[in-house]
Amino acid sequence: MNPSRTVAELKELRVLTADENGARRVAFTPAWTKAREFLAAKLAGLPLETHQDAAGNFWATLRGRSAKALIIGGHMDSVPDGGWLDGCLNTLAAVEILRRLADEYHGCPPVTVRLVDWADEEGARFGKSLFGSSACAGTLDIEEARHLRDRDGITLADALRTVGIELENVKASGAELADAAAYLELHVEQGPVLLDKGLVLGTVLGTFGVERHAITFHGQAAHSGSTPMARRHDAFLAAARMAPEIYSIAARHGGVCTIGSCTTRPGIVTSVAAECRITLDQRHLDAAALRAMLGDAREAAARFAADTGVRVEWRRLMRADPALFHPDLIGLCDEATEEICGTSHRMPSGPLHDATEVSRAGIPAAMMFVQSLHGISHNKIEDTREEHIETAIRAFDLLATKTIEWIIRQPAD
Amino acid sequence: MNPSRTVAELKELRVLTADENGARRVAFTPAWTKAREFLAAKLAGLPLETHQDAAGNFWATLRGRSAKALIIGGHMDSVPDGGWLDGCLNTLAAVEILRRLADEYHGCPPVTVRLVDWADEEGARFGKSLFGSSACAGTLDIEEARHLRDRDGITLADALRTVGIELENVKASGAELADAAAYLELHVEQGPVLLDKGLVLGTVLGTFGVERHAITFHGQAAHSGSTPMARRHDAFLAAARMAPEIYSIAARHGGVCTIGSCTTRPGIVTSVAAECRITLDQRHLDAAALRAMLGDAREAAARFAADTGVRVEWRRLMRADPALFHPDLIGLCDEATEEICGTSHRMPSGPLHDATEVSRAGIPAAMMFVQSLHGISHNKIEDTREEHIETAIRAFDLLATKTIEWIIRQPAD
Repeated sequence: MNPSRTVAELKELRVLTADENGARRVAFTPAWTKAREFLAAKLAGLPLETHQDAAGNFWATLRGRSAKALIIGGHMDSVPDGGWLDGCLNTLAAVEILRRLADEYHGCPPVTVRLVDWADEEGARFGKSLFGSSACAGTLDIEEARHLRDRDGITLADALRTVGIELENVKASGAELADAAAYLELHVEQGPVLLDKGLVLGTVLGTFGVERHAITFHGQAAHSGSTPMARRHDAFLAAARMAPEIYSIAARHGGVCTIGSCTTRPGIVTSVAAECRITLDQRHLDAAALRAMLGDAREAAARFAADTGVRVEWRRLMRADPALFHPDLIGLCDEATEEICGTSHRMPSGPLHDATEVSRAGIPAAMMFVQSLHGISHNKIEDTREEHIETAIRAFDLLATKTIEWIIRQPAD
Repeated sequence: MNPSRTVAELKELRVLTADENGARRVAFTPAWTKAREFLAAKLAGLPLETHQDAAGNFWATLRGRSAKALIIGGHMDSVPDGGWLDGCLNTLAAVEILRRLADEYHGCPPVTVRLVDWADEEGARFGKSLFGSSACAGTLDIEEARHLRDRDGITLADALRTVGIELENVKASGAELADAAAYLELHVEQGPVLLDKGLVLGTVLGTFGVERHAITFHGQAAHSGSTPMARRHDAFLAAARMAPEIYSIAARHGGVCTIGSCTTRPGIVTSVAAECRITLDQRHLDAAALRAMLGDAREAAARFAADTGVRVEWRRLMRADPALFHPDLIGLCDEATEEICGTSHRMPSGPLHDATEVSRAGIPAAMMFVQSLHGISHNKIEDTREEHIETAIRAFDLLATKTIEWIIRQPAD
């Protein structure tokens, strides 16, 4: 096991697939194909079977004495102008673990170990994240996927066809999970929690449930000079009152709430806003708390609308249930972290990950986070100290070993 | 004097220059030229001299025994999708007054009486309102005007050339004011004040001073799922806090404040806003109170920025001093209104008008407002009851008579 080799390979990948604005490995584009070829080249020489499944996910299988499989998953794709670690840290760490296992067990470990490179985790081009893993897990909404287009009007189905994938058939990839016994994923945190706590690694409890809405306040356009303040039906005033309110709601329930977008109509300096549309993203690891946060936001919006004499309209953009990882694997992740770092820390994941989808398919899953510098991701400044990357790969490898032992310990079906 | 004829002519103009979305008489377009030809046709047969001045303003002069002139001004241009009364009510009322005076005085009233149709009052195409009147008053910033372009990239200078006007020469129109003794303007209120008070007419004290700024809050983009609430530098939060604050500021000082536009960057549902830009429009009839309102807004923005850990940046978009109308003419407007309606009401004008510019040139000016239904303007639903239009024309005609008497009473220079 040589974690510094993985750091060198990550840098090699960066040279190959990034420019001065960051990583460019958007799924189903030439840069992504190049990244996958890079991955395949790193696996060459190992005693693996490789193939692309019906959803475009890439699998490399090291057959073990048992067909029961440990899956280590990541994604080579990135957002445009992305960071050098998001996704590929995981896939390349898996390469190093496969090298170690193949060597240690002379090509045949006690259980089967598989690397998966999920297709289009980011959803950067078609706005649908976790494409490959949700197809494999069976949770993908095909009807919705049929209508997805990129900004040039190209359908997802057409883009998939260029890489040999038939949209109508993607759920056939579910067969890959037939012998899956456990799923592990190592990822950069993409937030500042570990950094603030001075910790290198975190054990992920699960991924937040998400409620995502567009909230539109409908008021009345009126001339900014001739309309007395008391006569206004100011859509922006009602919407703006939501901003401090969501901080109270998040504090009350312990989740996170974000208003990321605000637009006004007519949106001119000389008119009271007739219409103001904001987006609200709410996340919590507990489904009941998430429902309560949404309820509080709805109540507040109705109250601010009534106070301001405007009308409010909600439209759901997306929802996802919380996904809780497997308690045994969470415990093993704690153990591995403690053995390598002397301490462990449990935390939820705000972003969704492929592990969310695998977990929804009923496969025991766990994730390990490594500290992000700046608490920033999806940006060229995304970074993690090299010694932390190496520590993470060592701990993740130990987690893989512990998970293989755990799989062996499980009673036969 | 036949005010119902003016109502009929306004309707005729509407048929000629509006479609199902409202008036289309945008300055320097074919519809505007058609509106001016309509105006000229209505003046044909009266003993008038007409010409277009160096700024594109149209003048019709009824020579009187004295060269001292009463000017009655309006504008045939409208915003796109505008109302049927904004601007042209005034010009067509002036036509009726000229008819009455020409008849009553057999073509030679005691003082000269002039109708002016100002060019591009609305500034709808190039974003510079009061073009013709500010050129005439000498307040137009030629350097700024040289850089104005419409949305198709056509410069103001090129658009002016198509109607025979040379931008560099527009201030030569100032000569028109050489003998100006008083300026009167009748306009729809464009607000709800008279409607709310159940009054038909108002005496305008002057036009509000204006401070117009773009305020940009610079925070930090951060993932909506992975960034704890306490770690955020949320540009939208800081900007949103300004919304209720400007209502307090307006209440404290008695002016009006409006945030009409709000935009966010990156403006996506999954990111805390890195940047939020709002526009702030503040108006007051008192210059000191306007300064205080701006000072309060600056202080509040700095405080909200500091509280939120973001940076705030101000950019002035426009400023205008309050313009106070002439006290004698304000008194005459009160008298005329009382004689016709039994009561009078003094009020400021929130919007700027051509009278603002004429007043800045040192010409005694006054304005009369007539009630707007819905309190709405710059919209096809802009409306005023026909009997109120007729009452307004009668009162405005009486104000013209009183103003002519006032001009005669003034000592010679």
